[in-house]
Amino acid sequence: MNSFLQPRYIRVHKNDNVAVVVNQGGLPAGSRFACGLVLTEMIPETHKVALADLAEGDAIVRYGVVIGHAKRAIQRGNWVHEGLVSLPDAPPLADCPLATAVPKTLPKLDGFTFEGFRNIDGSVGTRNILGISTTVQCVAATVAYAVRRIKAEMLPHYPNVDDVIAITHPYGCGVAIDAPGAAVPIRTLRNLSLHPNLGGELLLVSLGCEKLQPERLMPSGTLPVLNEESSLAVMQDAQQGFGEIVDTIMTLAERKLKKLNERRRISCPASDLVVGLQCGGSDALSGVTANPAVGFTADLLVRAGATVMFSEVTEVRDAAHLLTARAATPEIAQDLVREMAWFDEYLHAGGADRAANPTPGNKKGGLANVVEKAMGSIAKAGSTALMGVAGPGQRVTQKGLVFAATPASDFICGTLQLAASMNMHIFTTGRGTPYGLAMAPVIKVSTNSGLATRWSDLIDVDAGKIATSEATIEEVGWEIFRLILEVASGCKETWADHWGLHNDLVLFNPGPVT
Amino acid sequence: MNSFLQPRYIRVHKNDNVAVVVNQGGLPAGSRFACGLVLTEMIPETHKVALADLAEGDAIVRYGVVIGHAKRAIQRGNWVHEGLVSLPDAPPLADCPLATAVPKTLPKLDGFTFEGFRNIDGSVGTRNILGISTTVQCVAATVAYAVRRIKAEMLPHYPNVDDVIAITHPYGCGVAIDAPGAAVPIRTLRNLSLHPNLGGELLLVSLGCEKLQPERLMPSGTLPVLNEESSLAVMQDAQQGFGEIVDTIMTLAERKLKKLNERRRISCPASDLVVGLQCGGSDALSGVTANPAVGFTADLLVRAGATVMFSEVTEVRDAAHLLTARAATPEIAQDLVREMAWFDEYLHAGGADRAANPTPGNKKGGLANVVEKAMGSIAKAGSTALMGVAGPGQRVTQKGLVFAATPASDFICGTLQLAASMNMHIFTTGRGTPYGLAMAPVIKVSTNSGLATRWSDLIDVDAGKIATSEATIEEVGWEIFRLILEVASGCKETWADHWGLHNDLVLFNPGPVT
Repeated sequence: MNSFLQPRYIRVHKNDNVAVVVNQGGLPAGSRFACGLVLTEMIPETHKVALADLAEGDAIVRYGVVIGHAKRAIQRGNWVHEGLVSLPDAPPLADCPLATAVPKTLPKLDGFTFEGFRNIDGSVGTRNILGISTTVQCVAATVAYAVRRIKAEMLPHYPNVDDVIAITHPYGCGVAIDAPGAAVPIRTLRNLSLHPNLGGELLLVSLGCEKLQPERLMPSGTLPVLNEESSLAVMQDAQQGFGEIVDTIMTLAERKLKKLNERRRISCPASDLVVGLQCGGSDALSGVTANPAVGFTADLLVRAGATVMFSEVTEVRDAAHLLTARAATPEIAQDLVREMAWFDEYLHAGGADRAANPTPGNKKGGLANVVEKAMGSIAKAGSTALMGVAGPGQRVTQKGLVFAATPASDFICGTLQLAASMNMHIFTTGRGTPYGLAMAPVIKVSTNSGLATRWSDLIDVDAGKIATSEATIEEVGWEIFRLILEVASGCKETWADHWGLHNDLVLFNPGPVT
Repeated sequence: MNSFLQPRYIRVHKNDNVAVVVNQGGLPAGSRFACGLVLTEMIPETHKVALADLAEGDAIVRYGVVIGHAKRAIQRGNWVHEGLVSLPDAPPLADCPLATAVPKTLPKLDGFTFEGFRNIDGSVGTRNILGISTTVQCVAATVAYAVRRIKAEMLPHYPNVDDVIAITHPYGCGVAIDAPGAAVPIRTLRNLSLHPNLGGELLLVSLGCEKLQPERLMPSGTLPVLNEESSLAVMQDAQQGFGEIVDTIMTLAERKLKKLNERRRISCPASDLVVGLQCGGSDALSGVTANPAVGFTADLLVRAGATVMFSEVTEVRDAAHLLTARAATPEIAQDLVREMAWFDEYLHAGGADRAANPTPGNKKGGLANVVEKAMGSIAKAGSTALMGVAGPGQRVTQKGLVFAATPASDFICGTLQLAASMNMHIFTTGRGTPYGLAMAPVIKVSTNSGLATRWSDLIDVDAGKIATSEATIEEVGWEIFRLILEVASGCKETWADHWGLHNDLVLFNPGPVT
């Protein structure tokens, strides 16, 4: 730790003309770095210092990439805050290189396993949960009532079942269900119902008169194999009121609990993992500590044959040209371009653009704009070839690195990654968030040790020790990889699961409500 | 009941050439009505029968209004199902008459009171609830954890406090917060926090780095008077993790509970009621039984000086010309036109139109299209002059009949009516829904006795007895009016409150997510 008390910055790329101050609490004016650089003014922790004199209009370079231009002359040792950095145009999608720099395949990584619940469609659950799906919000409060009783009266008798959850949502009625955007929430709900952690035991509660009829949510013939005929409770079929409605749901639930309770964890190769990556409450260290460490983990997972998903369109939009070059085929690159173009248009139609990201907290954390945020964000994706692209809410079956197109909104992204069949979730944060999901375990990684110390009962892994040179990116990457296997096996509990911090799912509905 | 076993239909207006069959279970072909009409085919309950021969293209008239045109020739005694009725164009907004048929003021109704909690801003609560507001979904699971503990450990010590609720939502971050549509969800959240049933005791939980910063949600100077300085817990300020975060929320909560516990119900005039009207799961009887009865109640409430809100833009759009004529002033009529035009454009931008309403269940219930649904829907608004129009999420202070513009989606409508300061809610349903809200009591009125019988432990008032001639519209209207006063006073429990059926709030966010 001693060396950390010295003024210290991290420069990511040799061409960078800015670097990030990593001393906790920031540094005062006059602070002198080992290289001889002297701060002309106070710089907060995780904010940027100019390594060279810059004229107005000069490129500001971080991650070896132009993240903006100087709005006025900047002196060496100045604080390069967001007010000094102009936002460049997004890379034009028409000019993106297609599969021009496909990374070589990394050596295979064998012998890593976890204990999971294998499903008959081949997917593997990391949990054994009874999920109750719903067609429409009208039934949500009733299902919540039934779930309270199921958990209190039934679940204790089925010790191999981890939890009972209701998949409730505001969709299903009062929406333009034939509008162009409607496919997204509908397939999201369908794929959530088929999530690997729910064991293929579909229990669906419908009101009866809603727009999203059960056969529209779950069309027969288009579904992966379920363990038995799906079980459906339609409230408006009840002839004897609330009591009958609750009895029907509970009777179906008990039948499902019995079947789920017979399941046992078996040894599964790491290739059965579907790991979703996300960041939230990012700071300028995100791209230096936590995200590169997760990127290393992502490479390990890909080497082990697993699926790794990254997402958040607005946070990769400014790196689109880098990712299309990395795509394994021109077709995959075009798929990425298509998703980016769709989201550009979606934002434009709503009177917004990618500059709506970042947040005030990102800026306080030293991120000047969405370009800098994007460059840090894609570090999570590691270094392997992009093997596939999925639209919002689509199920992912491709192995290797996959881009699952989602908004960057934490909860929408998490919901869509669950729909894509994510069975483990890694979430990096600099500012701190108590994020958690009921349907799959979430490992939270802090970008800085200050947060990991302050929130020692919420943060699972401290990647801040990379900034203090207490650990390397590779070491933290391996730590996260091993933790994934332990948590996936049910051997170790995340903090979010310990406290029961499970945020509601949030659907992405690009269509109008009525 | 005996007379009801005879074939029976209800014709609403003397010019109508269709009527609604009201016999439970419908009527077989050959059924003969007292007037001599004979059915040529089976007609389901609440569906329409032709009272005259119609040529292809002839107007089909119900409520004295053209609800569509015959797609082919229809014989007297035929079933006039949705497949036979074309959808006419919506009334052009530019041609709407402005305040041309302002109803005369009805006689004042004095002497009706209820027992409520008067707030220092003049509003009156029908409940005494501790509400915990949130800036962003990131904090929702933590607040839920705290609320569970507050309810278990603290609430029993404060017997005059009815409940503790978290106002959680998916807004606040990952959204285009400067987009044109953002004003709607932000003011909705603000006004929910100021709801009369929360006693002006604002407790707000923020993460810290979110886009919707506390001062943006609650700008000082623009708020109605609160009882004391607002209380704010910012999670990212916590130096000692989850324990400290929960302690902070609970300490603030206990301070609020103490103050709320000192409050007592006092006698308040009925003019302090703000009653929101809504229908969901409608059928063809909605416009014949429940909605006209509620319309009579609305007139009673207006006569007593209260505020009565009706809503659901897509369900009144086809009656726009009738409502603008009823507006008290041309300015109010123009306000209504403005809200209708905004929603037309909103639907159009999303590739939809008003035909996205009605639902499959509405159609099964006999509603041919949105025109027929709209004519039934506005019956709830009674017969008085339109005294004001509020945009989505705006607080309503105007007395008399007010149109609060909202989508027809049950839960978005309810949420926006709560934001408008609704302290009592009346919900009519034909198909049946277990709708309920935590923030204000909901009285559910069935359009048909079959539903009221089947769901005797969910439906509070049976307006179906109007169809069977067991009660008049006026009698049921008075029954609902008296029940409102009892429920508002806390003397009588609704079925939704009895079972704790409280649906989540749903924000209307016309802006994009990021």
